[in-house]
Amino acid sequence: MADYDPDNVFAKILRGDLPAHKVYEDDATLAFMDVMPRGDGHVLVIPKAASRNMLDIGEDVLGPLYATVSRIAKAVKAALGAEGVTIQQFNETAGGQVIFHTHVHVLPRWTDVPLKPHTGKMGSPRFWPPTPKRSARRSEAR
Amino acid sequence: MADYDPDNVFAKILRGDLPAHKVYEDDATLAFMDVMPRGDGHVLVIPKAASRNMLDIGEDVLGPLYATVSRIAKAVKAALGAEGVTIQQFNETAGGQVIFHTHVHVLPRWTDVPLKPHTGKMGSPRFWPPTPKRSARRSEAR
Repeated sequence: MADYDPDNVFAKILRGDLPAHKVYEDDATLAFMDVMPRGDGHVLVIPKAASRNMLDIGEDVLGPLYATVSRIAKAVKAALGAEGVTIQQFNETAGGQVIFHTHVHVLPRWTDVPLKPHTGKMGSPRFWPPTPKRSARRSEAR
Repeated sequence: MADYDPDNVFAKILRGDLPAHKVYEDDATLAFMDVMPRGDGHVLVIPKAASRNMLDIGEDVLGPLYATVSRIAKAVKAALGAEGVTIQQFNETAGGQVIFHTHVHVLPRWTDVPLKPHTGKMGSPRFWPPTPKRSARRSEAR
């Protein structure tokens, strides 16, 4: 597979080396709250198998991934009383990707509530990491 | 299924009642160029089965849909020499949806080339419809 760094933030979450607020998990996928949410209830869904992005995976990974995305979309809409849901998935830096483990954004939406801008960083010391050893983890999170 | 209008623009494209620049088709899905592109090579992928959006479909529709999305994402990146790909999927008006037949946006991306804003309308007389009977079709497209 193209250029997968096993020390990316999501790989660390999968290994339990970094904490995450998990909302769903099955054999193939994990869903957890985005630490830099673009709105209330912003969830990320990732495949457990190592892959860089959607350009790098086959249907064996894609099927279970989007099954979970659909499940989470319906669940967050119901749980939060959202009026809509926006799904986003970014591939490569030019495509908006920041963390290079395949992930899908599930964003509950409400009328006239725009998404907050994406800062392009998960390394903000205000939010991340939630535990000490900031300097080391911050550089990894970029 | 929730509230599906069989006279939406994509249902008409599927029936051949409206033209489209098709780029891929199989038993379950159709891919065609967006008539209001947010960037070069902006493709829409839709399931052929009637459904309002992702909140309204099961894995039988979802699997083939995202298999085609993945195929198109890889194809447009290669064909256009794109540096990345952004995938977007909008559910309900609050979630950004304008046409109420499930669809996925595949957007080839290049460094420092932002997406053009979405006007929220396919009814612009400059671009749509490509044939006469504007007033009738414009009202349908909203």
